[in-house]
Amino acid sequence: MSAIINDIEIIKAKATKINDVDFDNLKFGHVFSDHMLECNYKNGNWEKPKVVPYQPITLDPSAKIFHYGQSVFEGMKAYKDTEGKVWLFRPLDNYKRLNISAKRLAIPELPEDYFMEGLKALLEVDEDWIPQNEGSSLYIRPFIFASGNGFHASPADAYKFIICTAPSGAYFAGEVKVLIEEKYSRSANGGVGYAKAGGNYAGQFYPTQLAVEKGYQQVIWTDDNTHEYIEEAGAMNIFVRINDTLITGPTSDRILDGITRKSIIELAKSEYIPVEVRKITVTEVVEAAKNGSLKEMFGAGTAAVISPISGFGYKEVDYDLPKLDNTYASFLKKCITDIQTNKTDDPFGWRYSVK
Amino acid sequence: MSAIINDIEIIKAKATKINDVDFDNLKFGHVFSDHMLECNYKNGNWEKPKVVPYQPITLDPSAKIFHYGQSVFEGMKAYKDTEGKVWLFRPLDNYKRLNISAKRLAIPELPEDYFMEGLKALLEVDEDWIPQNEGSSLYIRPFIFASGNGFHASPADAYKFIICTAPSGAYFAGEVKVLIEEKYSRSANGGVGYAKAGGNYAGQFYPTQLAVEKGYQQVIWTDDNTHEYIEEAGAMNIFVRINDTLITGPTSDRILDGITRKSIIELAKSEYIPVEVRKITVTEVVEAAKNGSLKEMFGAGTAAVISPISGFGYKEVDYDLPKLDNTYASFLKKCITDIQTNKTDDPFGWRYSVK
Repeated sequence: MSAIINDIEIIKAKATKINDVDFDNLKFGHVFSDHMLECNYKNGNWEKPKVVPYQPITLDPSAKIFHYGQSVFEGMKAYKDTEGKVWLFRPLDNYKRLNISAKRLAIPELPEDYFMEGLKALLEVDEDWIPQNEGSSLYIRPFIFASGNGFHASPADAYKFIICTAPSGAYFAGEVKVLIEEKYSRSANGGVGYAKAGGNYAGQFYPTQLAVEKGYQQVIWTDDNTHEYIEEAGAMNIFVRINDTLITGPTSDRILDGITRKSIIELAKSEYIPVEVRKITVTEVVEAAKNGSLKEMFGAGTAAVISPISGFGYKEVDYDLPKLDNTYASFLKKCITDIQTNKTDDPFGWRYSVK
Repeated sequence: MSAIINDIEIIKAKATKINDVDFDNLKFGHVFSDHMLECNYKNGNWEKPKVVPYQPITLDPSAKIFHYGQSVFEGMKAYKDTEGKVWLFRPLDNYKRLNISAKRLAIPELPEDYFMEGLKALLEVDEDWIPQNEGSSLYIRPFIFASGNGFHASPADAYKFIICTAPSGAYFAGEVKVLIEEKYSRSANGGVGYAKAGGNYAGQFYPTQLAVEKGYQQVIWTDDNTHEYIEEAGAMNIFVRINDTLITGPTSDRILDGITRKSIIELAKSEYIPVEVRKITVTEVVEAAKNGSLKEMFGAGTAAVISPISGFGYKEVDYDLPKLDNTYASFLKKCITDIQTNKTDDPFGWRYSVK
């Protein structure tokens, strides 16, 4: 079957897999919808994207993705409200950031309409895959990788842009304890830390495994020079609340400009929560934990939304955070998910109707 | 056709592509031999490798290589001497480094016999692909990547180890001018710079493109904190000769422990060339260029062997290197390639007979 949506060609899957999916018990990014968007870069141009059945990708063994890590991605979510309407959250920011990442990785930038019209066509075709249950959503993974061939260490001459989607539940199950890193680093000054580049993630896995063995779920990365400044948590930006002030580090060429992060800053300000965007030292956080002024820490990101941190480890000492009744984390999470799922007004203009 | 070599199963290609190859005009890593070694990691174990026809790799779109850059590789060469005997150069060092890289990227380490016996079986099957011409060799590319599926940012549960080979000529055509980098960086303290991780290469492409636009072929990376210490050139380690002393930076968690680099250090010492392994400042190199004591700079790596540098740029100023008749670079290159190609004795025990 073939059709056209938003001027995008659609090749439909012969059968659906949706009846095999237990929408009441969704894990994160584990089950994939029936279709995907595919768009190829060849001979100096992005070709028009198509919606095709979700299907394997076949590459030459010399394809540069296998050798030189030339890949970038984004993370987004689609929400279905109680009336069945479908919404995205600040999708143009994801599009822009994908191109910022692409440029740093020497990947050709993508035209806006290929991204936006392609995504909308994909969501229309797989609309039934968007969960309506509380706390679930359709996780959307746009990614670009080097499909061109050759062992020369230089940018590829061919790329694939693909969007896959996965109906998903919570990213973290249970409480999150973090380890503040003293030895390993995520990114360099002048490096690719601000890009959603594949290699940034692989480099975190081993130190994170070491942290998991010690009983933590995530690592909080610090600067590679002094390990004294808190940067981010790899899949999340980090916020701390000292007394009543909410603090997060400034973005830099080492830190991802998180869309949830900047939305929380705006939301908190609009709710008259004192917000500071400034460098945070580990010493300051440890002192605040000791004297009781550290009230909350949480991570913020598309996958995890807002993920409260129950405690942190630093220099072999564990610090527990207080268990408060009314946290900024729960308040801000409700604010942001209510906007995302069309349960409330959207004074910021963040919500985006898919059709 | 199926056979067994070194206890490795061989599935032969139905036809050879070798007659299409112009062995007198080989580029680098552009044409691939008839076979490849393939070895899969599943259910917590590396399965026995097989030699199979060179063939495409098929992966799910959620395979972690596309998203999280979990990949490592090696570069090696096989040489055929005038009697047709086949030689490798310090292959166990490549094997060990592959596992060092793998560990840092949370990739399961590979058994030595799978690597060594697999490689030898592959070279026996594709022996005709090993060039005998002066300056050419069979470039060997062992690599491991995450083939397991899922969008969760965590190590994959399945991997592929593959060795492909490519009859190759010189890596660089013509002279190499380098730019000493003042803004961008290759690696962080506590990062993955010492590993041959895919992501380390992608991050270099954009700054290298900027350097190429200014008329340079390569970037010399400096430390990310002060940009005052010379590190490496991404595909090569860097040596400088000031007066008669050969100097190269120490390896660290930011710098690859190059096999050509350490061989050159040993070779130079055995030839009574004064060698210093110590930090090199950019200031020192610029001063030496100005006062005429900077005699040579060259890169050293498996692909490029020894690649003389004709000049460098720094802070918008170009510095030319003198054109000497008898350079350390040409002398040491002859020493190392004579050992590699069995033209001379091998007092170090570096040469390795394939059969």
